[in-house]
Amino acid sequence: MPITTDDLQELRDKLGERFVTDQRAIEPYGKDMSWMLPEGEPLGAVFADRTEDVSIALAWANAHKVPVSVRTGGSGLAGGAVSYPGGLIIALHNMNRILEIDHENGIAVVEPGIINAQLNKELAKEGFFFAPDPASASMCSVGGNIATNAGGLRAVCHGVTINWVRALEVVLADGRVIHVGSKTIKNVSSLNLKELFIGSEGTLGVITQAVIRIEPLNQYDNYTFFACFDSAEDAGYATVMLRACEPRPVSLELIDALGVELVNKRNPDLQIPQPGAALLLGQAEGENAKRVVEEYAQVCREYGATAVQFEEGTRLFQVRRDAYPALSANGMQVIGDVSVPISRLAEAIHGIEEISVKRGRKVSILAHAGDGNIHPIVECGEGTEEAAEAESLLDEVCRMAIGMEGVVSGEHGIGHLKHAEIDHLLSPDTRSVQRAIKQALDPNNILTPGRKI
Amino acid sequence: MPITTDDLQELRDKLGERFVTDQRAIEPYGKDMSWMLPEGEPLGAVFADRTEDVSIALAWANAHKVPVSVRTGGSGLAGGAVSYPGGLIIALHNMNRILEIDHENGIAVVEPGIINAQLNKELAKEGFFFAPDPASASMCSVGGNIATNAGGLRAVCHGVTINWVRALEVVLADGRVIHVGSKTIKNVSSLNLKELFIGSEGTLGVITQAVIRIEPLNQYDNYTFFACFDSAEDAGYATVMLRACEPRPVSLELIDALGVELVNKRNPDLQIPQPGAALLLGQAEGENAKRVVEEYAQVCREYGATAVQFEEGTRLFQVRRDAYPALSANGMQVIGDVSVPISRLAEAIHGIEEISVKRGRKVSILAHAGDGNIHPIVECGEGTEEAAEAESLLDEVCRMAIGMEGVVSGEHGIGHLKHAEIDHLLSPDTRSVQRAIKQALDPNNILTPGRKI
Ligand SMILES: Cc1cc2nc3c(=O)[nH]c(=O)nc-3n(C[C@H](O)[C@H](O)[C@H](O)COP(=O)(O)OP(=O)(O)OC[C@H]3O[C@@H](n4cnc5c(N)ncnc54)[C@H](O)[C@@H]3O)c2cc1C
Ligand SMILES: Cc1cc2nc3c(=O)[nH]c(=O)nc-3n(C[C@H](O)[C@H](O)[C@H](O)COP(=O)(O)OP(=O)(O)OC[C@H]3O[C@@H](n4cnc5c(N)ncnc54)[C@H](O)[C@@H]3O)c2cc1C
Repeated sequence: MPITTDDLQELRDKLGERFVTDQRAIEPYGKDMSWMLPEGEPLGAVFADRTEDVSIALAWANAHKVPVSVRTGGSGLAGGAVSYPGGLIIALHNMNRILEIDHENGIAVVEPGIINAQLNKELAKEGFFFAPDPASASMCSVGGNIATNAGGLRAVCHGVTINWVRALEVVLADGRVIHVGSKTIKNVSSLNLKELFIGSEGTLGVITQAVIRIEPLNQYDNYTFFACFDSAEDAGYATVMLRACEPRPVSLELIDALGVELVNKRNPDLQIPQPGAALLLGQAEGENAKRVVEEYAQVCREYGATAVQFEEGTRLFQVRRDAYPALSANGMQVIGDVSVPISRLAEAIHGIEEISVKRGRKVSILAHAGDGNIHPIVECGEGTEEAAEAESLLDEVCRMAIGMEGVVSGEHGIGHLKHAEIDHLLSPDTRSVQRAIKQALDPNNILTPGRKI
Repeated sequence: MPITTDDLQELRDKLGERFVTDQRAIEPYGKDMSWMLPEGEPLGAVFADRTEDVSIALAWANAHKVPVSVRTGGSGLAGGAVSYPGGLIIALHNMNRILEIDHENGIAVVEPGIINAQLNKELAKEGFFFAPDPASASMCSVGGNIATNAGGLRAVCHGVTINWVRALEVVLADGRVIHVGSKTIKNVSSLNLKELFIGSEGTLGVITQAVIRIEPLNQYDNYTFFACFDSAEDAGYATVMLRACEPRPVSLELIDALGVELVNKRNPDLQIPQPGAALLLGQAEGENAKRVVEEYAQVCREYGATAVQFEEGTRLFQVRRDAYPALSANGMQVIGDVSVPISRLAEAIHGIEEISVKRGRKVSILAHAGDGNIHPIVECGEGTEEAAEAESLLDEVCRMAIGMEGVVSGEHGIGHLKHAEIDHLLSPDTRSVQRAIKQALDPNNILTPGRKI
């Protein structure tokens, strides 16, 4: 049934100015940072201030069978938060408070809209950190991190977001509010519902509050190393050895020659060493960080690094954060996210290079190398045809990764843009289990329909 | 419809001698290590040799709506694996092979029946370990560990089972076989189904194979310390400080005076120091283990320890494994499993002592103290009335724990015996979500019905 002005008035009565229908005002909240655009105008957006707003909005959408998109930081790369024509946007950026920092229990209670880097700044004042640290830390929200189970620069050592969440408040598709997980360190009192909502990309419920784990900050200096390789494949082999080092690097990232070149152009002050093919950069922390980083450097030399440099601090790690923005500002913007068993990393890098040559289309490589998680970034001109070509190249990369027992998304999620790829990865039975769970939790299929699952 | 001899013959035709109906032969597989007993005879057991056996058995049970109990090591303490009258037992102890140990990727592929300690013995030969280490390591299986999301002696530092599983093969209630998770380090390509099956205690599917994470063994010596306290509450306060030490203890356990006394009686060679009220024991590992353990000892003294001892190695840690068997052999056998935020540990211990006094019933305390996970072990004579009294005391402990933002089970699971307690903990809406998922995956409610959820 089409939505009437009375129906809209109902929402306005309940939410006041937090229900916004001015298309110009809501347009930024119907997109993420992928190339995907909405296919038509949404009917409005709820700029939620509190859990109850989300509950009201979902109960309404469910009653009227209106498709809902959920958006917090809007830095997603899979099109998961893009609005639906005639749909409702639930935007959570205003719910951005830190409600509690509990030193004794090593937890913090936060609203979903708090920006990742902002949270870590506040935590640092009290001597703590939250490990998930996507390259997008200055734009993405903790709610978005949880909804995508984000990885990032510290995952190699500290794990991904799921390892840093104790409990969630979730609004279900019909507006009911539930609490899953607990403040305790261990808990097997229920099915692992918290874990099910983490990484569900807005398809099973809307996260409105989280109890996250925090840990005391490292009290020692960090050291960073840079190793230049003439072959990205060799950098891949070095990575496998570095990951096996004891202690494991706190970060272990790869940027290819084009990425470094563009970052250096954008920010000449950084003066990052320009590799022939790929730069491997890593970090050690703790009491013996200097000695450890020297050991890492030695491993890199053994695996063919042509030049290795190291220095105190993490200042130069900024290069890794700048790499994707620099590439995408230069016509390289369609990004993939395959993950392979770490032993296959070098082979996968080589395979991507071959696919690029075969297709005659430039592909740059960034990788959370230490996790076997590779972002091929594909050259792409204007228009959807070009984008489709680039996505088709990535589809080939996905099939290659699957052939290596890899997966189609390591951290960005499936959203809309990787949806075709899961056909190659998941069996029809596995998908039917996903759909059965979706159907059980969202029978009217209003929450982020047609994506992820 | 009642099961006919033809129906049974169907199963015998397909499974041969792996379908067993001799009640004496199957009786041991219809129990776990709790005090719960089956309420009537099951109709048979499948001693599975391979995944296909499980698939055949479940397809049959589903078609005939026969309740199924799932049992691997049988060391469970929640009655989760106890057989149903007229039900089918699926026993996986014969599926106990290690199929692969992959050094480069830090993973092993195993069947569910491999015994935890046996696995670690085999891994140690190749320089690796699997961290989940329940006090029952010599009896419990890796499949059971996964099905219960087991904790154990190393969880305080290395996390619980969910942190050590990469992928699972699961047979669904209708016999279909699915694969969830991957060999990669990171993966967000599907809903977190692997995590949902972990800890589901046989209610959502049967685990028939697992890809587990393994890590290189610590190359240095371990050190163990023992600290005697005249007040269990003080031991609780010391725990909070010890957990916050950098590095965190690899183990941090509490045994009360009665537990130590009974272990010393059983095994006089151990000569564990007898505390006035509670013994705290912990471990450090790594290059500086000796220095670190001395720091731990100092913290204990500051928090009121009357005597502190430490020594190289982990030999004396055996005391912790022996404690529950020693207690249960002495009339203390009804065990609880509450978990509280670590800051409330001392208060919770004190509360349990008060409940014990009030009820005039002896309660001994073991705890994975560093995780805030407490096992109150209640005195209990013969007969179900006595057991009910003991369980009612534990119910009061659970309500106290919930009042402290705690939970009713930290690691043993809900099974049958803690089922009443989740009424206090989970809201009707949260439970309805659990039931909706159960209904979606097991519409005929044949898998471990009436437990956990
Ligand atoms: C330059 C750049 C670098 C990046 N680097 C990394 C990286 O290193 N690692 C990494 O993992 N990702 C990275 N990303 C991707 C992105 O930043 C992450 O996916 C991030 O976690 C998204 O958070 P967000 O708040 O921006 O989410 P959004 O873009 O708002 O949403 C992302 C998805 O989560 C859903 N969602 C959002 N909020 C909620 C909620 N409260 N409840 C339920 N569902 C919700 C949305 O519907 C959508 O499907 C990068 C992106 C950019 C642009
Ligand atoms: C002396 C003693 C000490 C203990 N100490 C600890 C401890 O420190 N930490 C801890 O966490 N636990 C402890 N336990 C409890 C128990 O050992 C654990 O719960 C263990 O993980 C159970 O493994 P199991 O193979 O014996 O499982 P079982 O007893 O066979 O089954 C346990 C549950 O899992 C289900 N299940 C079993 N196998 C499968 C499968 N393959 N697929 C699906 N479902 C399955 C069963 O249906 C049941 O609900 C202890 C028990 C004893 C007796």
